[in-house]
Amino acid sequence: MERRRSVYLDHAATTPVRPEVARAMLPYFSERFGNPSSLYALAREAKGAVEEVRDRVAAAIGASPEEVFFTAGGTEADNWAIKGVAAANRRKGDHIVTSAIEHHAVLHPCRALEKQGYRVTYLPVDEFGRVEPERVEEAITDKTILVSVMAANNEVGTIQPVAAIAKIARDRGVPFHTDAVQAIGAFPVDVERMGADLLALSAHKFGGPKGVGALYIRRGTRVGTFMDGGAQERGRRAGTENVPGIVGMGKAIEIAVAEMPQKSVWLAATRDKLIRGILDSIPDTRLNGHPTERLPNNVNVAFRYVEGESILLMLDALGIAASTGSACTSASLEPSHVLTACGLPPEHAHGSLRLTLGSRNTGEDVDYVLEVLPQVIGRLREISPLGGGM
Amino acid sequence: MERRRSVYLDHAATTPVRPEVARAMLPYFSERFGNPSSLYALAREAKGAVEEVRDRVAAAIGASPEEVFFTAGGTEADNWAIKGVAAANRRKGDHIVTSAIEHHAVLHPCRALEKQGYRVTYLPVDEFGRVEPERVEEAITDKTILVSVMAANNEVGTIQPVAAIAKIARDRGVPFHTDAVQAIGAFPVDVERMGADLLALSAHKFGGPKGVGALYIRRGTRVGTFMDGGAQERGRRAGTENVPGIVGMGKAIEIAVAEMPQKSVWLAATRDKLIRGILDSIPDTRLNGHPTERLPNNVNVAFRYVEGESILLMLDALGIAASTGSACTSASLEPSHVLTACGLPPEHAHGSLRLTLGSRNTGEDVDYVLEVLPQVIGRLREISPLGGGM
Ligand SMILES: Cc1ncc(COP(=O)(O)O)c(C=O)c1O
Ligand SMILES: Cc1ncc(COP(=O)(O)O)c(C=O)c1O
Repeated sequence: MERRRSVYLDHAATTPVRPEVARAMLPYFSERFGNPSSLYALAREAKGAVEEVRDRVAAAIGASPEEVFFTAGGTEADNWAIKGVAAANRRKGDHIVTSAIEHHAVLHPCRALEKQGYRVTYLPVDEFGRVEPERVEEAITDKTILVSVMAANNEVGTIQPVAAIAKIARDRGVPFHTDAVQAIGAFPVDVERMGADLLALSAHKFGGPKGVGALYIRRGTRVGTFMDGGAQERGRRAGTENVPGIVGMGKAIEIAVAEMPQKSVWLAATRDKLIRGILDSIPDTRLNGHPTERLPNNVNVAFRYVEGESILLMLDALGIAASTGSACTSASLEPSHVLTACGLPPEHAHGSLRLTLGSRNTGEDVDYVLEVLPQVIGRLREISPLGGGM
Repeated sequence: MERRRSVYLDHAATTPVRPEVARAMLPYFSERFGNPSSLYALAREAKGAVEEVRDRVAAAIGASPEEVFFTAGGTEADNWAIKGVAAANRRKGDHIVTSAIEHHAVLHPCRALEKQGYRVTYLPVDEFGRVEPERVEEAITDKTILVSVMAANNEVGTIQPVAAIAKIARDRGVPFHTDAVQAIGAFPVDVERMGADLLALSAHKFGGPKGVGALYIRRGTRVGTFMDGGAQERGRRAGTENVPGIVGMGKAIEIAVAEMPQKSVWLAATRDKLIRGILDSIPDTRLNGHPTERLPNNVNVAFRYVEGESILLMLDALGIAASTGSACTSASLEPSHVLTACGLPPEHAHGSLRLTLGSRNTGEDVDYVLEVLPQVIGRLREISPLGGGM
């Protein structure tokens, strides 16, 4: 096997900034560099650019501009949502309902709150990674102050029934947060149809730059501040605005939403070709996540008798960039909490491979993967101490 | 009076990104776009770039690379330092010592902690904005868990005797945080000589991009996490790294530190020319801040009988970008907490003007300001309801 292409198949970890996005950002570094809080032409120009993006992000998710707050990314948006709601509602209650398959940007703030005396229910999921809305209903008590379930899972790609979950939360008077970091550009994200009171997004997952995101907060939702300091974001999120980053996010969300209907059809077809090709050509392999309710760009398969890390190393040598799960934990050797929650036995969970497509990918990329992957898995199973070679 | 130049004199609010910095960042948007946590060539390249900057920032402030953590800016660094130390030392004590003239990125986290039951001493300053080290000594109790005093003030430019303050804190076994956001590039910042256990910095104040900064944490200092989620920054600060921003900060700090010795001499001479020119040509005017222990680029003067906002509007029309104080509060009409703490009567505090120089400024910029400012103040006093026209 020799490297014949460079194929990036880790768009769930991060995406290249689109050239149009980088071009839109550029003037805001050295020319239109004003601090939006200042009082002169250069500052008004920066302020205007930020407010234009707020309108655009609001339009993209069906919100009002005053409900959109810029953050340093998805992790900050999730931290703010969870810790902010917890702090602001401490007198009302101390209980949070979330799912076992959330991103660590939701789970770890929940753990931090547990140390402070809050109680958290981590709902189980079915074998496809779905949270059953009835579980949410059962978990809510009169001390519940937040329900947080992600729109789509970053590892196995499963899309959650958030509208049904949100309705249950709303009927019980509990605010509903959804991590939509993987959803933007993949399927329509609309805070009304989803019933979200809080919604997190991150630019670098949809063609924008790293280090910028947003939190939607429905008018009237009680949320404390997370970043305290200056009066930016109407006093609710301090810190000099990342103007070029925000401008980039604005351009990226505009393109992502406009392209989505067409792009998602192509992605889903390509995804299915990849999935079918892998399952058909490699024995002892199963699909992780939901067969149909999944992100259009997500392929996640488990190979018995192999280690995910070894697959990645061999693919890397062949020019293919892939992942075993979430980028944020790929440096650790623990089995994925998502796959474990889906009931995959650890041997299987260790041999998982995530391939996530993007608009730069081509049919030849897929052909290349389908050609080399069976060889990679075959080779690894031959030398595997896990018994595949027997 | 007519506009004849464009003069940016608000470098304390933000600085233009240097062209070399923007050039260094550019490849990391669309080409070297990997997620540093992933496991393939593109990711290793991004990871390598981030770690190179960590080395560079560490070298610039006399720290070890493992003591440098990237953040989304100065505000996050300050929030993390204050809230992180408070949370990690709750059993040890509940008392924080800071000064009345800190940036809101320090003061507002302290206020937030007060609501949670912590006690905070806000030390007074002298008329020049200096914290007396003896005040720190007196304020520390056996319940004190943190002393936080800024290296240099963003409004009046006063440089604090941080080494003396740090020594007192250390002798009492209390960690010392300093907000060095305005200090980088202005004078040598060295965590050993300053005695800092924590130190905050922000790239956009020294020729880097907005939305990226760092917190120095001395090895062994007990600090809880602030941003919870993925395992980035050795598990201490979650969130996908802002790779282009971090690369930009690295280039900017390298240049800022290299240029500092020469640049600060020019800045200080130019600052003094501006101060003398203003005081000599405009009656009823006084210098805010310390006459000598001040940032080399900071001019802050109070004009009786005028409103700061009106000065800014007229200067803006003349092409001069200036500030009344901190950018973060310039949209509010409250008198500056810094000037109030320095004992300036509110009438005087309302008529303050901050001019902060940068390396793009020229002698002609200064001449222009010295020509038009007396006319601006004269005109405003003629129409002032505050009595100057009498
Ligand atoms: C579902 C999900 N939530 C949150 C995050 C965190 O976002 P960010 O990388 O912008 O911190 C990610 C990606 O890392 C994600 O996939
Ligand atoms: C002294 C000081 N600390 C903190 C900050 C906040 O930094 P940032 O703008 O990066 O959030 C600023 C500037 O706004 C500042 O001048």
